[in-house]
Amino acid sequence: MTLPASISASVIDRLKSAVGAGGWTDDPDLLAPFLVEWRDTWRGTTPLMLSPATTAEASAVLAICHANRIAVTTQGGNTGLVGGQIPQGEVLISTRRMKAIRSIDPLDDSIIAEAGCILTDVHAAAATVNKRFPLVLASQGSATIGGLISTNAGGVHVRRHGMMRALVLGLEAVLPDGSVFSELTSLRKDNTGYDLKQLLIGAEGTLGLVTAASLKLVPVPRAMVVSMLAVESAKIAVELLHRLEERTGAVAAFELINHTGVAMALKNLSNVKDPLAHTKAPWRVLVEFESSADGLGDLAEEALGEAIEAGLVIDCLISQNEAQAQDFWLLREEMSAAQRPEGASAKHDISVPVSQIPAFLERADAVVESIVPGCQIVSFGHASDGNIHYDVVQPPGMEPAAFKARAPTLIEAVHDVAVSLHGSISAEHGIGISRREEFIRREPSAHLKLMHAIKSGIDPHGIMNPRVLI
Amino acid sequence: MTLPASISASVIDRLKSAVGAGGWTDDPDLLAPFLVEWRDTWRGTTPLMLSPATTAEASAVLAICHANRIAVTTQGGNTGLVGGQIPQGEVLISTRRMKAIRSIDPLDDSIIAEAGCILTDVHAAAATVNKRFPLVLASQGSATIGGLISTNAGGVHVRRHGMMRALVLGLEAVLPDGSVFSELTSLRKDNTGYDLKQLLIGAEGTLGLVTAASLKLVPVPRAMVVSMLAVESAKIAVELLHRLEERTGAVAAFELINHTGVAMALKNLSNVKDPLAHTKAPWRVLVEFESSADGLGDLAEEALGEAIEAGLVIDCLISQNEAQAQDFWLLREEMSAAQRPEGASAKHDISVPVSQIPAFLERADAVVESIVPGCQIVSFGHASDGNIHYDVVQPPGMEPAAFKARAPTLIEAVHDVAVSLHGSISAEHGIGISRREEFIRREPSAHLKLMHAIKSGIDPHGIMNPRVLI
Repeated sequence: MTLPASISASVIDRLKSAVGAGGWTDDPDLLAPFLVEWRDTWRGTTPLMLSPATTAEASAVLAICHANRIAVTTQGGNTGLVGGQIPQGEVLISTRRMKAIRSIDPLDDSIIAEAGCILTDVHAAAATVNKRFPLVLASQGSATIGGLISTNAGGVHVRRHGMMRALVLGLEAVLPDGSVFSELTSLRKDNTGYDLKQLLIGAEGTLGLVTAASLKLVPVPRAMVVSMLAVESAKIAVELLHRLEERTGAVAAFELINHTGVAMALKNLSNVKDPLAHTKAPWRVLVEFESSADGLGDLAEEALGEAIEAGLVIDCLISQNEAQAQDFWLLREEMSAAQRPEGASAKHDISVPVSQIPAFLERADAVVESIVPGCQIVSFGHASDGNIHYDVVQPPGMEPAAFKARAPTLIEAVHDVAVSLHGSISAEHGIGISRREEFIRREPSAHLKLMHAIKSGIDPHGIMNPRVLI
Repeated sequence: MTLPASISASVIDRLKSAVGAGGWTDDPDLLAPFLVEWRDTWRGTTPLMLSPATTAEASAVLAICHANRIAVTTQGGNTGLVGGQIPQGEVLISTRRMKAIRSIDPLDDSIIAEAGCILTDVHAAAATVNKRFPLVLASQGSATIGGLISTNAGGVHVRRHGMMRALVLGLEAVLPDGSVFSELTSLRKDNTGYDLKQLLIGAEGTLGLVTAASLKLVPVPRAMVVSMLAVESAKIAVELLHRLEERTGAVAAFELINHTGVAMALKNLSNVKDPLAHTKAPWRVLVEFESSADGLGDLAEEALGEAIEAGLVIDCLISQNEAQAQDFWLLREEMSAAQRPEGASAKHDISVPVSQIPAFLERADAVVESIVPGCQIVSFGHASDGNIHYDVVQPPGMEPAAFKARAPTLIEAVHDVAVSLHGSISAEHGIGISRREEFIRREPSAHLKLMHAIKSGIDPHGIMNPRVLI
C-alpha cells in the first residue's frame, strides 16, 4: 500500500478542526520533544501533531485519515524502546489530552482509565479505594495506559499478576476507519464471540488507537518483604525460585543481577549500595514477597534460612523497613544507568523457558566473547519469567564506533542463541522499528500470513503505524 | 458460503485413508454416542467420523475438506452445553485419539498436552511432578483440553487463576486450509507480533482445530481449607468476598447458592447434607482458601470470626478434613442434578459486574415471577466472577410442555436484565448453536463485522463448525 507523500491543505484544515484549537500543533519548538526518543536513538519528523481530547475527536481524525489515505503514528508517553512511537513523516496522534480516570469501582475491582493516563496515576487512583493495579515497571512515571496496552507491557510482577494482557478487562479503541470498538466492560467472564480486544493488545498500534481501558484491580497485600540474596549460579537461582514459590506461595518478584552489573553500578553511581559486597558472589537475586497472611517476615526468613542450609544461598538480607526495601530495588533499577559511562552497548530483551536461563547465559557469554573479546556483559532481569535483559557493554578503551560496527553481528548471534533454546527475541519491548526486519525474517511464514490477513482486514489502507511491526 | 450437500465417494475414500483403518467409522452403532449431547438436548447426524491420531493426520483431513468445500464439526469430550459439538450432517472430527501428554517440565511450570487429553489426566500428570493445573470444573472427568481451549472454559478457580485463556502458554492448531499453526512455547513473555493463539482460544472451533497446547502449571498450595457460610443476602456475600480477599489473600473459590437450591438438593438427593440447616439463612456461600503459609486454618477462622462479629455471617463451618471439604463441595456440585426430578427448567449462564449481582437477582426474580408465577428459582455459581447460573425450574404441578412453551420468553427476559446491568448472556458456556441467533441479534454490528472479517480471512470457504457462533 502506497500512501500519498503529501497532504492537501484542505485535509490538514479538516484534521485541525476535528480536534479544535488546543488540539493540534505544527510549531517545531512544541513538536520537538515528541520527535525524539528519550535515549536519542531515534529522531523523527511530522507535518502535524493531533492531540484529540475525546474518543469522538479521535474517531473523527482517523475517519479523515482513512478516507484520504493519510498515514499516522500513534504516541503515548514516548517511553517505547523499539522506536515505534517516533513518526517519520506521518501525522502524529498523541493521547496526551485523554487523561481522565472515567470511573473506579472497588466492588468490581476495576478502573476505567483513558489512554493518556500515566501508569503511576492509575496506581494512585487505585490506592484511593484501597486497591492496587499490579503492573509495575521502570518507566511507570511516564508510560501511558494506551501505550502499555498496545505493547502488552511486562515488568516485575508478571509471574504473579500477568502481563498487561491479563490485566485488561475491557477496551475502547478507534479502528483505522474511524469506527469505535467499545467494550469497556468490567466482566470477569464473557464468552460471547471472538475476544477481539486481544488483537488490539500488543498490536503496537497497527490495528487501531486504544482510547480507554477497563483494568483489573487486586487487593493490597497486608505485608511486603524484599530480600537480597547472594548465589553461586543462575542454575541455583532457578532452583531457588521454585523452592521459594512452593515454600511461601508469596513470591511477587524474582530478579537476577550478575556480578558485572553490580560492580558497574557501584563504580559509576554514587547512590547505589551493595550490602552483600563481602560475599563476592557471582549473582544477586532480589526477591519480593507479598502476602495478606500474618507473619510474612517470619515465613520469608524461614524459607531463606532453609535455602541457606540447603547450600543454595550464600548469604541474604531481609528488608527491615521501607527504606531498606527501596535500597535493594535501587540496585536492580539502576542497571541501565550504570552502563552509560562505559560507552556503547548492545542490548537484548530475550526470553527463554525458565529452565533454559543457565544454558542461554553460558552460550551467549561464549558467543559474545568470540565476537568482541573483552566485552562487559551485564545480565539482569525477570528470571521468574525467563526474561533476561542481556546487555553487552563495550570493552574498556575500545572506540565506541568500532563497537557499534560489531553490534548488529553481536545482536544477531545472541538472538540465535535465544531462538535455539525456543526463546523469543523480544520478551516485553515489542518489535517496533528496531526489530522489524529481523522479526519478519525469523517468523514462520504461516504466522506472517495470518498477521497480514488480519492487518489488511482491519486496516485495508495500511494507515496505522505503517513502518511498525509488520 | 454454500457447501455441497453430499460428498463424492472418492473424497470419502481419501478422508478415510488420511486417518488409516482405525481412524474412521460410519457404523451407526459406533457413531451413536458421539451424535447425542449428554443431556439429550441435541441429536445429530454425520456421514463419517474421523479420529486423527496425529497433527499430521488432522492436517491432511482438513486440507482435503478445504479443497473440496466439505463442512466439518469438531468434537472433544462432548460435554459442551450449547450444542456446538453435535454435527448436523457435517463430517465429524473427533480428537479422541490425540491423548498424549507430550512433555512436562516442572522447572518451566509447563505441560504439553494433546487436544484429546481429559482434564483430570492433566491434573494427574501435573501431580506427578508436584505441580497443579488449576482449571477445575464439573465436567473435568470427560472434558478435553482441545474443547476447553476452544470454549475458553471457566470453572471455580477463575478469580485466582484465570479462565483457560490465561492458562495457555502456547498452542498448536490445524487451520481450516490444513496448514499447521505451531507455537507450543512455554515462554512466559513473548512480544513478537500479534498474539495469534488468542484468536483460536474461545473461537468454538470456527477458526481451526486445536491439536495440542502448552499449559501453565502452578505450585501446589501447602494447605487448603473449605468453609460453608450462611448469609442473609447476596449483597452481603459480595461484601464478604472483598473482606475475605483483603483479610486473607487466600480466597481460591467463592461460590453462592440460594436457599431454594439447597432445599431442592436435600429433597431430591440422598447423598447431600446441609450442615447449616438450623440457620434457615437465605444464602449459602462456599469459600475455598488455599495458601502455602503456615496456619491457614487459623487465618480462615480469624477472618470468618471477624465477619461473624461484623454481622456479615450468620454461622459458618470450616472443614476439619478432606471428607468434610468434599461434603461442602457436594452441595454446590449437585445443583444441576437436584433440579432434574422437578421437571422442566430454563437455564442461564449470565455474568454481571460483581457489584451488580444483587441488582441482577432482584430484577431477574421479579421478571421471572411475572412471566411464570410460582417458578422455583435456583441461583448459584461463581459469585467472585459475577457469573451466576440462574436456573428457573417449573412450578410444581405445571405441565412441563406448558413451561417449555414459556421458556424462550423467560430466557430473553432474564438476558435483558443481565444486559441492562452491562452483563453477558454467556459467561462461560459459549454461544454454540443454542445462543447463536440471540448473540447475533444483540452483538454490536461493528463487532460482528470484525468477527466476519477474521472468519472469512482464516476460513474463506466456511468449512469449520459452520453452524456455530457466527
